[in-house]
Amino acid sequence: MFVSETKIRVRYAETDQMGYVYYGNYAQYYEVARVEALRQVNLSYKMFEEQGIMMPVLHLSCKYIKPAYYDDLLTIKTIIKKLPGIRIEFLYEIYNEEGVLLNQGETVLVCINMKTQRPCQAPAHLMDALAAYFN
Amino acid sequence: MFVSETKIRVRYAETDQMGYVYYGNYAQYYEVARVEALRQVNLSYKMFEEQGIMMPVLHLSCKYIKPAYYDDLLTIKTIIKKLPGIRIEFLYEIYNEEGVLLNQGETVLVCINMKTQRPCQAPAHLMDALAAYFN
Amino acid sequence: MFVSETKIRVRYAETDQMGYVYYGNYAQYYEVARVEALRQVNLSYKMFEEQGIMMPVLHLSCKYIKPAYYDDLLTIKTIIKKLPGIRIEFLYEIYNEEGVLLNQGETVLVCINMKTQRPCQAPAHLMDALAAYFN
Amino acid sequence: MFVSETKIRVRYAETDQMGYVYYGNYAQYYEVARVEALRQVNLSYKMFEEQGIMMPVLHLSCKYIKPAYYDDLLTIKTIIKKLPGIRIEFLYEIYNEEGVLLNQGETVLVCINMKTQRPCQAPAHLMDALAAYFN
Repeated sequence: MFVSETKIRVRYAETDQMGYVYYGNYAQYYEVARVEALRQVNLSYKMFEEQGIMMPVLHLSCKYIKPAYYDDLLTIKTIIKKLPGIRIEFLYEIYNEEGVLLNQGETVLVCINMKTQRPCQAPAHLMDALAAYFN
Repeated sequence: MFVSETKIRVRYAETDQMGYVYYGNYAQYYEVARVEALRQVNLSYKMFEEQGIMMPVLHLSCKYIKPAYYDDLLTIKTIIKKLPGIRIEFLYEIYNEEGVLLNQGETVLVCINMKTQRPCQAPAHLMDALAAYFN
Repeated sequence: MFVSETKIRVRYAETDQMGYVYYGNYAQYYEVARVEALRQVNLSYKMFEEQGIMMPVLHLSCKYIKPAYYDDLLTIKTIIKKLPGIRIEFLYEIYNEEGVLLNQGETVLVCINMKTQRPCQAPAHLMDALAAYFN
Repeated sequence: MFVSETKIRVRYAETDQMGYVYYGNYAQYYEVARVEALRQVNLSYKMFEEQGIMMPVLHLSCKYIKPAYYDDLLTIKTIIKKLPGIRIEFLYEIYNEEGVLLNQGETVLVCINMKTQRPCQAPAHLMDALAAYFN
């Protein structure tokens, strides 16, 4: 299992008139969290695209437990529970500064070869970097 | 069962560098779709808030079937399958101009009394308006 | 002079915790307004890009006179005061349903040939469509 | 003169199909930059609002010099050139990792007493913190 943590500060732009982070903005937090998780093992999503592999999202789910507020410094735990194949599953847990769990989410991404526009195996760099966490 | 349709034109701002609508923007489309669905039966989410009831989202899920593109005129079908109680479930189906299903989603909202900050029954206006569709 | 009007309904996502439309979202409204203005004379920004001309923004300015609120049905007046050359200037005025002027803006776009990545004259289709409004 | 620097990593969500950061997203970057600039002198915009003063934006201008790209680690220089009164002016300069100036902006904010809904002097905390930089 691979676990990583990232911090994100809530922007004013991300709040809505309820005074909460708008429910649609969590998908952006998940995006930042998984990209930073990869960076922590020296992987760059940007480089994957430059090498011809993109990873669109197939499925998203979010569970809103408690609201996040403006200026909160959120901690996002990103978890990969099984070794990627053609698909990669990320789980997310978002905590506030008091350690309260605010939100849980999940995304399933699929690796696409940008030339053929067809699904393909996850990049070798990614598999190598994650291998150490799964055995 | 209550079914309603709304049209949304994809904004440039909503695309990403893949050339697709960014996966996090569908939640906004769902928001617009459910508000317009309510408007079609003469209900106003804005008025619910003015009358002291807000409806934050408890759960969101999205299935991304095919990408939506810039300037697509999307049709969003909003479906309520069961009469609301404290919670309201909305299903969404997004089609492009060729009638191809691009995306399916679901949100569960909860009615909150803004004074007590506690869950409450869906507003009577909403129940009355929907009653005709369920029997 | 070319003048056109478009309507945009304020989304919940676009509000912030002040209860106003977030100041950064007006740029999106301007984008929608100028694209719809072009559509009203049978021009499509999407088609410009497909034909190899893109129009990034060089300069933006916004003056916030009064706040726009959730669910407001805004009217955006888009104005082109002088015939485009390499650059196109759009002016915007945003009114609420009571006809109160809420916001004024301006964008300067530049036509770029996507192959050469260099500035170029505005597309002939655009010049032809606008010619009738200037003489 | 007060000068401060903040770093922001470009999110995928912030790109558009040109492959650039969407022009409307710079306003968010400015917001983050000015809030972080205040934090660097131990001021919190959140606290200003909690103490009854909000600071809506009256005027925004942006000059787009070169595009910012996905995953760029931007440096935003925030500059206050004159001591605030009822209004506060912030200037911004955005640089990429190579030190190239990509964007310049300016916002004018006004202090509003949330109770009276009328303009008021900038908070004493803010004036005290900035005084050292102006003499």
